[in-house]
Amino acid sequence: MALEAIRSSRGSLHILDQLLLPGQSRYEAVESVQQAWEVIRAMKVRGAPAIALVGCLSLVVELQAGAGGPGLAALMHFVRERLSFLVTARPTAVNMARAARDLADAAAREAEQDGATEEAVRERVIRYAEAMLEQDLKDNRRIGDLGAQDLLAKAAPGGGKVTVLTHCNTGALATAGYGTALGVIRSLHSLGRLEHAFCTETRPYNQGARLTAFELVYEHIPATLITDSMSAAAMAHKDVSAVVVGADRVVANGDTANKVGTYQLAIAAKHHGIPFYVAAPSSSCDLRLQTGADITIEERPGQELTDVNASRRPPALPLSPPGIGVWNPAFDVTPHELITGGIITELGVFTPDQLHAAL
Amino acid sequence: MALEAIRSSRGSLHILDQLLLPGQSRYEAVESVQQAWEVIRAMKVRGAPAIALVGCLSLVVELQAGAGGPGLAALMHFVRERLSFLVTARPTAVNMARAARDLADAAAREAEQDGATEEAVRERVIRYAEAMLEQDLKDNRRIGDLGAQDLLAKAAPGGGKVTVLTHCNTGALATAGYGTALGVIRSLHSLGRLEHAFCTETRPYNQGARLTAFELVYEHIPATLITDSMSAAAMAHKDVSAVVVGADRVVANGDTANKVGTYQLAIAAKHHGIPFYVAAPSSSCDLRLQTGADITIEERPGQELTDVNASRRPPALPLSPPGIGVWNPAFDVTPHELITGGIITELGVFTPDQLHAAL
Repeated sequence: MALEAIRSSRGSLHILDQLLLPGQSRYEAVESVQQAWEVIRAMKVRGAPAIALVGCLSLVVELQAGAGGPGLAALMHFVRERLSFLVTARPTAVNMARAARDLADAAAREAEQDGATEEAVRERVIRYAEAMLEQDLKDNRRIGDLGAQDLLAKAAPGGGKVTVLTHCNTGALATAGYGTALGVIRSLHSLGRLEHAFCTETRPYNQGARLTAFELVYEHIPATLITDSMSAAAMAHKDVSAVVVGADRVVANGDTANKVGTYQLAIAAKHHGIPFYVAAPSSSCDLRLQTGADITIEERPGQELTDVNASRRPPALPLSPPGIGVWNPAFDVTPHELITGGIITELGVFTPDQLHAAL
Repeated sequence: MALEAIRSSRGSLHILDQLLLPGQSRYEAVESVQQAWEVIRAMKVRGAPAIALVGCLSLVVELQAGAGGPGLAALMHFVRERLSFLVTARPTAVNMARAARDLADAAAREAEQDGATEEAVRERVIRYAEAMLEQDLKDNRRIGDLGAQDLLAKAAPGGGKVTVLTHCNTGALATAGYGTALGVIRSLHSLGRLEHAFCTETRPYNQGARLTAFELVYEHIPATLITDSMSAAAMAHKDVSAVVVGADRVVANGDTANKVGTYQLAIAAKHHGIPFYVAAPSSSCDLRLQTGADITIEERPGQELTDVNASRRPPALPLSPPGIGVWNPAFDVTPHELITGGIITELGVFTPDQLHAAL
């Protein structure tokens, strides 16, 4: 059975608690927008596309239960207010903000119809959010296929297999299913063209060691876990053909915010002449921002570095001495000139300078 | 009081169990060469200079207690055999191998004297090993001072303060005292020229998060802990003036083996135009090897990545799924062309191409 981070049917939403993986697979019911905000903030669900889907689907649960209203104006206010709140859970990924905008626009268009009713708007928002889930899965499969083709053309033009290194988790657990960067690896494996995958552990939250390793083992993809700091050594000694990562936000000039460490990986890939790809749905592209300098980077608590906690549950075990300062940005920005492979979207694979025109 | 990794007086040797730091400061008696091999292998003591000192001083404990002999030939055989055994505990650092050679040579020279006695040889080995401890401390202070001067001249020629990033632990805990790369940071701080220090956590063994952070807090040096993968972002956004790391082995062309992740740091420093220094006593230089390709790189158990264990004591907590492959090289090689600052030894600061002639 395919891995599912999100289980949704009308009026009901469950998320796989990723803090318990890989030890335990437990689904948790999400019954309100407030609860969705909390599971996103606590990183029980993470990954830019998955965050947006869980946020919107939590609103569906409330709407289906009759929240909002009475009356069209009150419902519209409720929808907008709840969506704005969801965006604040994690500010760096654009997907939630974009989904919120799209969903609010869909509601507004329905409300502007002649004879619009509260019920029609409610139904429109519900259907729109449900369609996003299906669309994300479809887009990911397309990203996987397009990315695999492009990567093979660049890294193995004479045929043969490729070895791909990835960072963080961009798989079924980060999306509606299949994944973005990990989707490219899945597609290469399906084509019989994947020699090996390397996944970084991805400190400080260990999404690679916990989640990507879990997905790779689950799919029987030949794979090796390394620390983040071993990536350059792997490029030098382990025949890495390409690096593929996801994105939390790609801006107009192609600069990309992704999990911290991505920038360092891109520099190492450039040093070794290895193509560096970003794989992300077009919904992760934010053309309103011109350069990476405009992206807000979320900083998280220092305790993520100073304490050790395998289950991500209390009690935490202190690792570092009290009194040490900590800097814990969750993301960094990779300048477009280091994205030498391309930006893989469901609409095609683009160089950073093609992106704006293409979208 | 200065931090001491090693407490030694004739016939007695204690090491600070670094697996328990920073939570607990507990000294463990080392009463035999076998026990020294075990504490080195288990990484209760680590750092290339400290390993060599603990190895040699454990032999002193045995010799002082009357081991070896009877007779000159039997004693010589005993000394050589015990030293060869010590070298096998951790193969990458050259210091133990060099110390073993030097100690065996000193014993041989004494044995070749007219009227040489077992007692004279025994005494010679003991005194030689004891002198190594004092010399290491002296060399480290010199490395700190020379390194600070050179770094200030390169990174702050107009005066002012510098911000230095370091990796792993190269401080008092890795040496007889003061430290190599961390000694440079200490010297800069003493001179009032250190703005800030960044230390990487240094996965998978967390020497930075546990030990370097501990030393920096202990010395009241303004410092910030980051994950290994944040180094490039720190260079881009936190005004890092220079990177200084230690070395487990520097070979004739200047290629340097050091804690895994050093290579990646050096690439990132080069990308940002930031001077990259290696600080190491000349005893870490191995001119018999021509290039980094000749260096044996120790690979350690995969469990260091897949399990979490704050105290480094059982029981370990699994973090990753069973079945994932792991690559865990303890070191990597930084090619000499990336060592743009220089190689700081107690004899001077050299560019990689000056090193061979200078030593």
